[in-house]
Amino acid sequence: MPTAIREEIRDAILDATERLLARYGYRKMTIEDIAREVGVGKGTIYLHFPSKEEVVLCHVDRIVYRLKVRLRTIATSDATAAVRLRSMLLTRVLLRFDSVQHYTQNLNDLLAALRPGLLARRARYYDEEAQIFADVLNQGRDAGELDFGDTLSTAYALLHATNALLPYNLTTMELGEREEVEEKTAAVADLLLHGLQRLKPNVAADPGLT
Amino acid sequence: MPTAIREEIRDAILDATERLLARYGYRKMTIEDIAREVGVGKGTIYLHFPSKEEVVLCHVDRIVYRLKVRLRTIATSDATAAVRLRSMLLTRVLLRFDSVQHYTQNLNDLLAALRPGLLARRARYYDEEAQIFADVLNQGRDAGELDFGDTLSTAYALLHATNALLPYNLTTMELGEREEVEEKTAAVADLLLHGLQRLKPNVAADPGLT
Repeated sequence: MPTAIREEIRDAILDATERLLARYGYRKMTIEDIAREVGVGKGTIYLHFPSKEEVVLCHVDRIVYRLKVRLRTIATSDATAAVRLRSMLLTRVLLRFDSVQHYTQNLNDLLAALRPGLLARRARYYDEEAQIFADVLNQGRDAGELDFGDTLSTAYALLHATNALLPYNLTTMELGEREEVEEKTAAVADLLLHGLQRLKPNVAADPGLT
Repeated sequence: MPTAIREEIRDAILDATERLLARYGYRKMTIEDIAREVGVGKGTIYLHFPSKEEVVLCHVDRIVYRLKVRLRTIATSDATAAVRLRSMLLTRVLLRFDSVQHYTQNLNDLLAALRPGLLARRARYYDEEAQIFADVLNQGRDAGELDFGDTLSTAYALLHATNALLPYNLTTMELGEREEVEEKTAAVADLLLHGLQRLKPNVAADPGLT
Protein backbone atom coordinates (compact mmCIF):
# COMPACT_ATOMS: atom_id res chain seq x y z
CA MET A 1 0.00 0.00 0.00
CA PRO A 2 1.46 3.45 -0.86
CA THR A 3 2.45 5.42 2.25
CA ALA A 4 0.08 8.31 1.49
CA ILE A 5 -2.98 6.03 1.41
CA ARG A 6 -1.75 4.12 4.44
CA GLU A 7 -1.54 7.42 6.32
CA GLU A 8 -4.98 8.45 5.12
CA ILE A 9 -6.62 5.24 6.38
CA ARG A 10 -4.73 5.55 9.66
CA ASP A 11 -6.03 9.10 10.08
CA ALA A 12 -9.58 8.02 9.20
CA ILE A 13 -9.37 5.30 11.86
CA LEU A 14 -8.19 7.82 14.46
CA ASP A 15 -10.93 10.29 13.48
CA ALA A 16 -13.53 7.55 13.85
CA THR A 17 -12.05 6.58 17.21
CA GLU A 18 -12.37 10.15 18.42
CA ARG A 19 -16.06 10.24 17.49
CA LEU A 20 -16.74 6.84 19.05
CA LEU A 21 -14.97 7.74 22.28
CA ALA A 22 -17.38 10.64 22.61
CA ARG A 23 -20.38 8.46 21.73
CA TYR A 24 -19.68 5.21 23.65
CA GLY A 25 -16.62 5.75 25.85
CA TYR A 26 -13.53 3.56 25.86
CA ARG A 27 -14.88 0.37 27.41
CA LYS A 28 -17.98 0.02 25.25
CA MET A 29 -16.22 0.83 21.97
CA THR A 30 -15.07 -2.22 19.97
CA ILE A 31 -12.74 -2.66 17.00
CA GLU A 32 -15.88 -3.65 15.08
CA ASP A 33 -17.49 -0.29 15.93
CA ILE A 34 -14.42 1.51 14.61
CA ALA A 35 -14.42 -0.56 11.39
CA ARG A 36 -18.11 0.18 10.82
CA GLU A 37 -17.58 3.93 11.49
CA VAL A 38 -14.69 4.07 8.98
CA GLY A 39 -16.58 1.88 6.49
CA VAL A 40 -13.97 -0.88 6.23
CA GLY A 41 -13.63 -4.44 7.51
CA LYS A 42 -12.26 -5.38 10.93
CA GLY A 43 -9.18 -6.84 9.24
CA THR A 44 -8.24 -3.41 7.88
CA ILE A 45 -8.14 -1.97 11.39
CA TYR A 46 -5.89 -4.81 12.53
CA LEU A 47 -3.56 -4.13 9.58
CA HIS A 48 -2.86 -0.75 11.15
CA PHE A 49 -3.25 -1.37 14.88
CA PRO A 50 -2.75 -4.53 16.94
CA SER A 51 -5.44 -3.69 19.52
CA LYS A 52 -8.11 -1.23 20.66
CA GLU A 53 -5.70 0.02 23.33
CA GLU A 54 -3.11 0.77 20.66
CA VAL A 55 -5.66 2.69 18.50
CA VAL A 56 -6.56 4.94 21.42
CA LEU A 57 -2.94 5.49 22.48
CA CYS A 58 -2.13 6.53 18.89
CA HIS A 59 -5.11 8.89 19.03
CA VAL A 60 -3.45 10.48 22.10
CA ASP A 61 -0.12 10.56 20.22
CA ARG A 62 -1.84 12.52 17.47
CA ILE A 63 -3.15 15.09 19.97
CA VAL A 64 0.38 15.59 21.30
CA TYR A 65 1.79 15.79 17.76
CA ARG A 66 -0.67 18.57 16.92
CA LEU A 67 0.24 20.30 20.16
CA LYS A 68 3.94 20.27 19.28
CA VAL A 69 3.18 21.85 15.91
CA ARG A 70 1.28 24.65 17.68
CA LEU A 71 4.02 25.11 20.28
CA ARG A 72 6.69 25.42 17.56
CA THR A 73 4.58 28.04 15.78
CA ILE A 74 4.35 30.12 18.95
CA ALA A 75 8.03 29.49 19.79
CA THR A 76 9.14 31.00 16.48
CA SER A 77 6.84 34.04 16.60
CA ASP A 78 8.04 37.62 17.12
CA ALA A 79 6.84 38.23 20.70
CA THR A 80 9.18 38.52 23.69
CA ALA A 81 10.35 35.23 25.20
CA ALA A 82 8.14 35.76 28.29
CA VAL A 83 5.05 36.34 26.16
CA ARG A 84 5.83 33.30 24.02
CA LEU A 85 6.43 31.07 27.07
CA ARG A 86 3.20 32.23 28.70
CA SER A 87 1.23 31.49 25.55
CA MET A 88 2.96 28.09 25.19
CA LEU A 89 2.03 27.16 28.77
CA LEU A 90 -1.61 28.09 28.17
CA THR A 91 -1.62 26.25 24.84
CA ARG A 92 -0.19 23.01 26.26
CA VAL A 93 -3.02 22.93 28.80
CA LEU A 94 -5.90 24.23 26.70
CA LEU A 95 -5.21 22.32 23.48
CA ARG A 96 -5.27 19.09 25.51
CA PHE A 97 -8.40 20.32 27.27
CA ASP A 98 -10.14 21.01 23.97
CA SER A 99 -9.05 17.64 22.56
CA VAL A 100 -10.94 15.67 25.18
CA GLN A 101 -13.73 18.19 25.74
CA HIS A 102 -16.31 16.23 23.75
CA TYR A 103 -15.87 13.07 25.77
CA THR A 104 -15.36 14.35 29.30
CA GLN A 105 -18.11 12.07 30.59
CA ASN A 106 -16.20 9.07 29.34
CA LEU A 107 -12.69 10.19 30.19
CA ASN A 108 -12.32 8.48 33.59
CA ASP A 109 -13.16 5.22 31.91
CA LEU A 110 -10.41 5.68 29.34
CA LEU A 111 -7.84 6.92 31.84
CA ALA A 112 -8.42 4.05 34.26
CA ALA A 113 -8.09 1.49 31.45
CA LEU A 114 -5.05 2.99 29.74
CA ARG A 115 -3.16 4.39 32.74
CA PRO A 116 -0.01 2.20 32.35
CA GLY A 117 0.18 2.80 28.59
CA LEU A 118 -0.31 6.53 28.98
CA LEU A 119 2.25 6.87 31.77
CA ALA A 120 4.81 5.06 29.63
CA ARG A 121 4.31 7.53 26.78
CA ARG A 122 4.16 10.61 28.96
CA ALA A 123 7.90 10.78 29.59
CA ARG A 124 8.52 10.97 25.84
CA TYR A 125 5.80 13.63 25.33
CA TYR A 126 7.33 15.80 28.05
CA ASP A 127 10.87 15.41 26.69
CA GLU A 128 9.71 16.68 23.32
CA GLU A 129 7.79 19.60 24.81
CA ALA A 130 10.69 20.50 27.11
CA GLN A 131 12.99 20.86 24.10
CA ILE A 132 10.70 23.47 22.53
CA PHE A 133 10.47 25.40 25.80
CA ALA A 134 14.26 25.20 26.25
CA ASP A 135 14.81 26.87 22.88
CA VAL A 136 12.68 29.87 23.86
CA LEU A 137 14.30 30.07 27.32
CA ASN A 138 17.74 30.25 25.70
CA GLN A 139 16.56 32.97 23.30
CA GLY A 140 15.18 34.93 26.26
CA ARG A 141 18.46 34.63 28.11
CA ASP A 142 20.50 35.61 25.05
CA ALA A 143 18.27 38.70 24.69
CA GLY A 144 18.94 39.60 28.34
CA GLU A 145 15.24 39.24 29.01
CA LEU A 146 15.21 36.10 31.18
CA ASP A 147 17.43 34.90 34.00
CA PHE A 148 17.57 31.29 35.23
CA GLY A 149 19.93 28.40 36.00
CA ASP A 150 20.08 25.26 33.88
CA THR A 151 17.92 25.59 30.75
CA LEU A 152 16.52 22.08 30.52
CA SER A 153 15.75 21.89 34.28
CA THR A 154 13.93 25.20 34.00
CA ALA A 155 11.98 23.94 30.98
CA TYR A 156 10.90 20.85 32.93
CA ALA A 157 9.99 23.01 35.95
CA LEU A 158 7.63 24.99 33.67
CA LEU A 159 6.07 21.75 32.45
CA HIS A 160 5.79 20.21 35.93
CA ALA A 161 4.18 23.37 37.24
CA THR A 162 1.39 23.14 34.65
CA ASN A 163 1.09 19.34 34.37
CA ALA A 164 -1.46 19.18 37.17
CA LEU A 165 -3.82 21.17 34.97
CA LEU A 166 -3.75 18.67 32.10
CA PRO A 167 -7.04 16.74 31.58
CA TYR A 168 -5.46 13.54 32.80
CA ASN A 169 -5.32 15.03 36.29
CA LEU A 170 -8.67 16.81 36.37
CA THR A 171 -12.05 15.51 37.45
CA THR A 172 -14.90 15.41 34.96
CA MET A 173 -16.44 18.33 36.76
CA GLU A 174 -13.29 20.41 36.51
CA LEU A 175 -13.05 19.45 32.84
CA GLY A 176 -16.38 21.07 32.20
CA GLU A 177 -15.05 24.48 33.07
CA ARG A 178 -12.70 25.68 30.36
CA GLU A 179 -12.55 29.22 31.67
CA GLU A 180 -11.65 28.02 35.12
CA VAL A 181 -8.84 25.85 33.78
CA GLU A 182 -7.61 28.77 31.71
CA GLU A 183 -7.65 31.08 34.74
CA LYS A 184 -5.77 28.60 36.92
CA THR A 185 -3.17 28.02 34.22
CA ALA A 186 -2.73 31.75 33.68
CA ALA A 187 -2.21 32.25 37.44
CA VAL A 188 0.52 29.60 37.55
CA ALA A 189 2.11 30.87 34.32
CA ASP A 190 2.19 34.45 35.60
CA LEU A 191 3.89 33.45 38.85
CA LEU A 192 6.45 31.39 36.95
CA LEU A 193 7.23 34.05 34.37
CA HIS A 194 7.47 36.72 37.02
CA GLY A 195 10.12 34.47 38.56
CA LEU A 196 12.00 34.08 35.29
CA GLN A 197 12.20 37.68 34.24
CA ARG A 198 15.42 39.53 35.01
CA LEU A 199 14.54 41.18 38.28
CA LYS A 200 16.34 42.84 41.16
CA PRO A 201 15.23 42.28 44.77
CA ASN A 202 13.55 45.35 46.17
CA VAL A 203 15.38 45.13 49.46
CA ALA A 204 13.76 48.07 51.22
CA ALA A 205 10.35 47.15 52.54
CA ASP A 206 7.51 49.43 51.52
CA PRO A 207 7.30 51.99 54.35
CA GLY A 208 3.52 51.86 54.11
CA LEU A 209 3.62 48.31 55.47
CA THR A 210 5.37 46.91 58.49
CA MET B 1 -18.04 1.96 72.72
CA PRO B 2 -16.10 4.91 74.22
CA THR B 3 -14.75 7.29 71.59
CA ALA B 4 -11.10 6.78 72.60
CA ILE B 5 -11.28 3.02 72.06
CA ARG B 6 -13.26 3.50 68.85
CA GLU B 7 -10.50 5.77 67.58
CA GLU B 8 -7.84 3.28 68.64
CA ILE B 9 -9.45 0.42 66.74
CA ARG B 10 -9.96 2.67 63.75
CA ASP B 11 -6.27 3.59 63.79
CA ALA B 12 -5.27 -0.07 64.16
CA ILE B 13 -7.38 -0.93 61.11
CA LEU B 14 -5.74 1.83 59.08
CA ASP B 15 -2.25 0.74 60.23
CA ALA B 16 -3.03 -2.83 59.19
CA THR B 17 -4.36 -1.58 55.84
CA GLU B 18 -1.14 0.30 55.21
CA ARG B 19 0.93 -2.86 55.82
CA LEU B 20 -1.37 -5.00 53.67
CA LEU B 21 -1.34 -2.52 50.79
CA ALA B 22 2.44 -2.89 50.74
CA ARG B 23 2.26 -6.68 50.98
CA TYR B 24 -0.64 -7.55 48.63
CA GLY B 25 -1.71 -4.40 46.82
CA TYR B 26 -5.25 -3.04 46.72
CA ARG B 27 -6.99 -5.60 44.55
CA LYS B 28 -5.75 -8.71 46.35
CA MET B 29 -6.35 -7.35 49.85
CA THR B 30 -9.68 -8.39 51.41
CA ILE B 31 -11.61 -7.20 54.49
CA GLU B 32 -10.83 -10.65 55.92
CA ASP B 33 -7.09 -10.00 55.52
CA ILE B 34 -7.45 -6.71 57.36
CA ALA B 35 -9.43 -8.34 60.19
CA ARG B 36 -6.80 -11.08 60.55
CA GLU B 37 -3.97 -8.51 60.55
CA VAL B 38 -5.70 -6.47 63.29
CA GLY B 39 -6.65 -9.62 65.21
CA VAL B 40 -10.41 -8.99 65.23
CA GLY B 41 -13.40 -10.44 63.44
CA LYS B 42 -14.64 -9.26 60.02
CA GLY B 43 -17.72 -7.79 61.74
CA THR B 44 -15.56 -5.39 63.72
CA ILE B 45 -14.11 -3.94 60.52
CA TYR B 46 -17.62 -3.46 59.12
CA LEU B 47 -18.61 -1.66 62.33
CA HIS B 48 -16.07 1.03 61.39
CA PHE B 49 -16.04 0.97 57.59
CA PRO B 50 -18.75 0.03 55.09
CA SER B 51 -16.32 -1.34 52.45
CA LYS B 52 -12.70 -2.01 51.51
CA GLU B 53 -12.79 1.07 49.30
CA GLU B 54 -13.85 3.18 52.28
CA VAL B 55 -11.02 1.78 54.48
CA VAL B 56 -8.42 2.73 51.90
CA LEU B 57 -9.90 6.18 51.28
CA CYS B 58 -9.80 6.82 55.05
CA HIS B 59 -6.18 5.68 55.03
CA VAL B 60 -5.54 8.39 52.42
CA ASP B 61 -7.51 10.88 54.57
CA ARG B 62 -5.17 10.09 57.46
CA ILE B 63 -2.10 10.80 55.31
CA VAL B 64 -3.54 14.19 54.39
CA TYR B 65 -4.50 14.89 58.01
CA ARG B 66 -0.90 14.26 59.09
CA LEU B 67 0.30 16.45 56.27
CA LYS B 68 -1.87 19.35 57.46
CA VAL B 69 -0.43 19.04 60.97
CA ARG B 70 3.09 19.29 59.51
CA LEU B 71 2.14 22.22 57.27
CA ARG B 72 0.68 24.13 60.22
CA THR B 73 3.86 23.54 62.23
CA ILE B 74 5.97 24.99 59.41
CA ALA B 75 3.47 27.81 58.81
CA THR B 76 3.81 29.01 62.41
CA SER B 77 7.62 28.77 62.59
CA ASP B 78 9.93 31.81 62.75
CA ALA B 79 11.40 31.72 59.23
CA THR B 80 10.58 34.31 56.54
CA ALA B 81 7.35 33.73 54.63
CA ALA B 82 9.29 32.70 51.50
CA VAL B 83 11.33 30.11 53.41
CA ARG B 84 8.19 28.77 55.09
CA LEU B 85 6.29 28.54 51.78
CA ARG B 86 9.20 26.78 50.08
CA SER B 87 9.42 24.26 52.89
CA MET B 88 5.63 23.77 52.84
CA LEU B 89 5.70 23.08 49.10
CA LEU B 90 8.45 20.49 49.51
CA THR B 91 6.65 18.94 52.49
CA ARG B 92 3.32 18.59 50.69
CA VAL B 93 5.05 16.62 47.92
CA LEU B 94 7.57 14.62 49.96
CA LEU B 95 5.32 13.62 52.86
CA ARG B 96 2.88 12.16 50.36
CA PHE B 97 5.78 10.52 48.53
CA ASP B 98 7.05 8.92 51.74
CA SER B 99 3.55 7.77 52.67
CA VAL B 100 3.21 5.57 49.61
CA GLN B 101 6.90 4.74 49.20
CA HIS B 102 6.55 1.20 50.61
CA TYR B 103 3.87 0.20 48.16
CA THR B 104 4.97 1.88 44.96
CA GLN B 105 4.74 -1.40 43.05
CA ASN B 106 1.07 -1.67 43.97
CA LEU B 107 0.10 1.95 43.62
CA ASN B 108 -1.20 1.89 40.04
CA ASP B 109 -3.56 -0.85 41.07
CA LEU B 110 -4.95 1.25 43.92
CA LEU B 111 -5.14 4.46 41.90
CA ALA B 112 -6.97 2.80 39.00
CA ALA B 113 -9.52 1.24 41.37
CA LEU B 114 -10.13 4.28 43.55
CA ARG B 115 -9.77 7.09 41.02
CA PRO B 116 -13.37 8.41 41.29
CA GLY B 117 -13.31 8.28 45.11
CA LEU B 118 -9.93 9.96 45.30
CA LEU B 119 -10.85 12.71 42.83
CA ALA B 120 -13.96 13.48 44.86
CA ARG B 121 -11.88 13.93 48.03
CA ARG B 122 -9.08 15.84 46.37
CA ALA B 123 -11.00 19.12 46.10
CA ARG B 124 -11.51 19.11 49.88
CA TYR B 125 -7.85 18.24 50.58
CA TYR B 126 -6.70 21.13 48.40
CA ASP B 127 -9.12 23.61 49.97
CA GLU B 128 -7.71 22.81 53.40
CA GLU B 129 -4.11 23.05 52.25
CA ALA B 130 -4.79 26.30 50.39
CA GLN B 131 -6.04 27.91 53.61
CA ILE B 132 -2.74 27.18 55.38
CA PHE B 133 -0.75 28.59 52.45
CA ALA B 134 -3.00 31.66 52.30
CA ASP B 135 -2.22 32.47 55.95
CA VAL B 136 1.53 32.52 55.28
CA LEU B 137 1.07 34.52 52.07
CA ASN B 138 -0.84 37.18 53.99
CA GLN B 139 1.83 37.31 56.68
CA GLY B 140 4.50 37.70 53.96
CA ARG B 141 2.56 40.54 52.38
CA ASP B 142 1.98 42.26 55.73
CA ALA B 143 5.73 42.04 56.39
CA GLY B 144 6.42 43.68 53.00
CA GLU B 145 8.24 40.55 51.96
CA LEU B 146 5.87 39.18 49.32
CA ASP B 147 3.88 40.80 46.55
CA PHE B 148 0.94 39.18 44.77
CA GLY B 149 -2.69 39.65 43.74
CA ASP B 150 -5.55 37.73 45.32
CA THR B 151 -4.34 35.62 48.26
CA LEU B 152 -6.47 32.53 47.79
CA SER B 153 -5.86 32.39 44.01
CA THR B 154 -2.14 32.65 44.66
CA ALA B 155 -2.34 29.88 47.28
CA TYR B 156 -4.12 27.65 44.75
CA ALA B 157 -1.57 28.53 42.06
CA LEU B 158 1.19 27.31 44.40
CA LEU B 159 -0.71 24.07 44.94
CA HIS B 160 -1.51 23.56 41.26
CA ALA B 161 2.10 24.17 40.34
CA THR B 162 3.27 21.32 42.59
CA ASN B 163 0.27 18.97 42.23
CA ALA B 164 1.81 17.23 39.23
CA LEU B 165 4.60 16.00 41.50
CA LEU B 166 2.25 14.23 43.91
CA PRO B 167 2.45 10.40 43.82
CA TYR B 168 -0.96 10.17 42.23
CA ASN B 169 0.51 11.65 39.08
CA LEU B 170 3.85 9.88 38.98
CA THR B 171 4.76 6.57 37.40
CA THR B 172 6.05 3.75 39.61
CA MET B 173 9.50 4.35 38.18
CA GLU B 174 9.41 8.04 39.05
CA LEU B 175 8.17 7.12 42.52
CA GLY B 176 11.34 5.15 43.12
CA GLU B 177 13.46 8.26 42.93
CA ARG B 178 12.89 10.41 46.00
CA GLU B 179 15.86 12.68 45.30
CA GLU B 180 14.64 13.32 41.79
CA VAL B 181 11.16 14.23 43.00
CA GLU B 182 12.70 16.50 45.62
CA GLU B 183 14.88 18.20 43.01
CA LYS B 184 11.97 18.75 40.64
CA THR B 185 9.79 20.14 43.42
CA ALA B 186 12.58 22.46 44.59
CA ALA B 187 13.03 23.76 41.02
CA VAL B 188 9.32 24.58 40.73
CA ALA B 189 9.20 26.05 44.26
CA ASP B 190 12.21 28.30 43.58
CA LEU B 191 10.71 29.65 40.37
CA LEU B 192 7.40 30.34 42.13
CA LEU B 193 8.93 32.01 45.16
CA HIS B 194 11.23 34.08 43.02
CA GLY B 195 8.04 35.30 41.37
CA LEU B 196 6.38 36.10 44.69
CA GLN B 197 9.13 38.06 46.33
CA ARG B 198 8.94 41.82 46.14
CA LEU B 199 11.08 42.52 43.12
CA LYS B 200 11.74 45.33 40.69
CA PRO B 201 12.19 44.72 36.97
CA ASN B 202 15.79 45.17 35.90
CA VAL B 203 14.88 47.06 32.77
CA ALA B 204 18.37 47.60 31.35
CA ALA B 205 19.63 44.50 29.56
CA ASP B 206 23.01 43.21 30.66
CA PRO B 207 25.46 44.85 28.21
CA GLY B 208 27.51 41.62 28.15
CA LEU B 209 24.67 39.92 26.30
CA THR B 210 22.90 40.89 23.12
